[in-house]
Amino acid sequence: MTAPSSLDELIGALRCLPGVGPKSAQRMAYHLLQHNPQGAERLGRALDNALRTLRRCDRCNGFTEAAICDRCLSTKRDPSQLCVVEMPADLNTMEQTHAYRGFYYVLMGRLSPLDGVGPRELAFDRLLARACDGMVKEVILATNLTHEGEATAHHLAEMLHARGIKVSRIARGLPLGSELEYSDAASVAQALQERRDY
Amino acid sequence: MTAPSSLDELIGALRCLPGVGPKSAQRMAYHLLQHNPQGAERLGRALDNALRTLRRCDRCNGFTEAAICDRCLSTKRDPSQLCVVEMPADLNTMEQTHAYRGFYYVLMGRLSPLDGVGPRELAFDRLLARACDGMVKEVILATNLTHEGEATAHHLAEMLHARGIKVSRIARGLPLGSELEYSDAASVAQALQERRDY
Repeated sequence: MTAPSSLDELIGALRCLPGVGPKSAQRMAYHLLQHNPQGAERLGRALDNALRTLRRCDRCNGFTEAAICDRCLSTKRDPSQLCVVEMPADLNTMEQTHAYRGFYYVLMGRLSPLDGVGPRELAFDRLLARACDGMVKEVILATNLTHEGEATAHHLAEMLHARGIKVSRIARGLPLGSELEYSDAASVAQALQERRDY
Repeated sequence: MTAPSSLDELIGALRCLPGVGPKSAQRMAYHLLQHNPQGAERLGRALDNALRTLRRCDRCNGFTEAAICDRCLSTKRDPSQLCVVEMPADLNTMEQTHAYRGFYYVLMGRLSPLDGVGPRELAFDRLLARACDGMVKEVILATNLTHEGEATAHHLAEMLHARGIKVSRIARGLPLGSELEYSDAASVAQALQERRDY
């Protein structure tokens, strides 16, 4: 009287995806089976392949198939700058600006004591070793402008300062194209406080 | 300088899922790889298994692992009633009402001329054969209360009437434009109970 088990299992497995609840999982499963079996096959293969081949880059901690990723092996980048981001997606956003030509370090998270994520879980020691390699002259903290991102930046800045490394933080302010009328007061206050000479 | 290819492929493959755009796919891929490799493995296996084992039930047209699904083999259901729904998710919603004890037929879609979905694509002939098996005394049309669902019901009613079969339509107790999958069980039960001759 119940639905077939391999269908149930597929629906259950789709809930491993972030933000996918029971209804979405059901819809996804039916969609794949009915309209896109090729897509389902491709996804199954891609998952298997990614799990088999991807590892962490020894330098930037991002995902790669080699010991050191192509980006970290580049000779066209400025070795004196190291930009710290939370996630690979943030790194991609930074790259899209075409405004940065240094190297990266990906934390793969942010400090979040309530979730049990502390300096040890984020392997701050690896970042410190990377920042103290003698080539890096400045560490740019580009963690998110959230409470957790700010706390992470603060913690990292203290550790890096203690080792005599120059540390900077991406600017806080109002985003380009924003209007004061529609901005929240805290952001406007921050932008005012951190105003720069014109 | 680019991200590793098996990661790109995984992100691309995740976009086969309905409602998943580039940003979500990226987030899902990183989440699986970093936080839930077991989940990723499970999903890969489930996809493979579902593709290998699932087929259409010869009676109700739903997904099953056998020639005829357990629900259609049940001896506790009333063979005189056949309820037509668009999708398996709708069938599940009907079952959750506990207000129906007959059998089902799943169209796996709805008439949608603009998308090239006509009576042939929905295999109306199979439904007609099922409805004319001599046991079925009433066909209950439980397609969605959308324009397309109503058109599908109208079309089916004409075909079934022409074969002398009693046809009913779930009551319009559900608000127009709503979909069964997202309706509460009580409203669906009401609509079933108050079905009217077509």
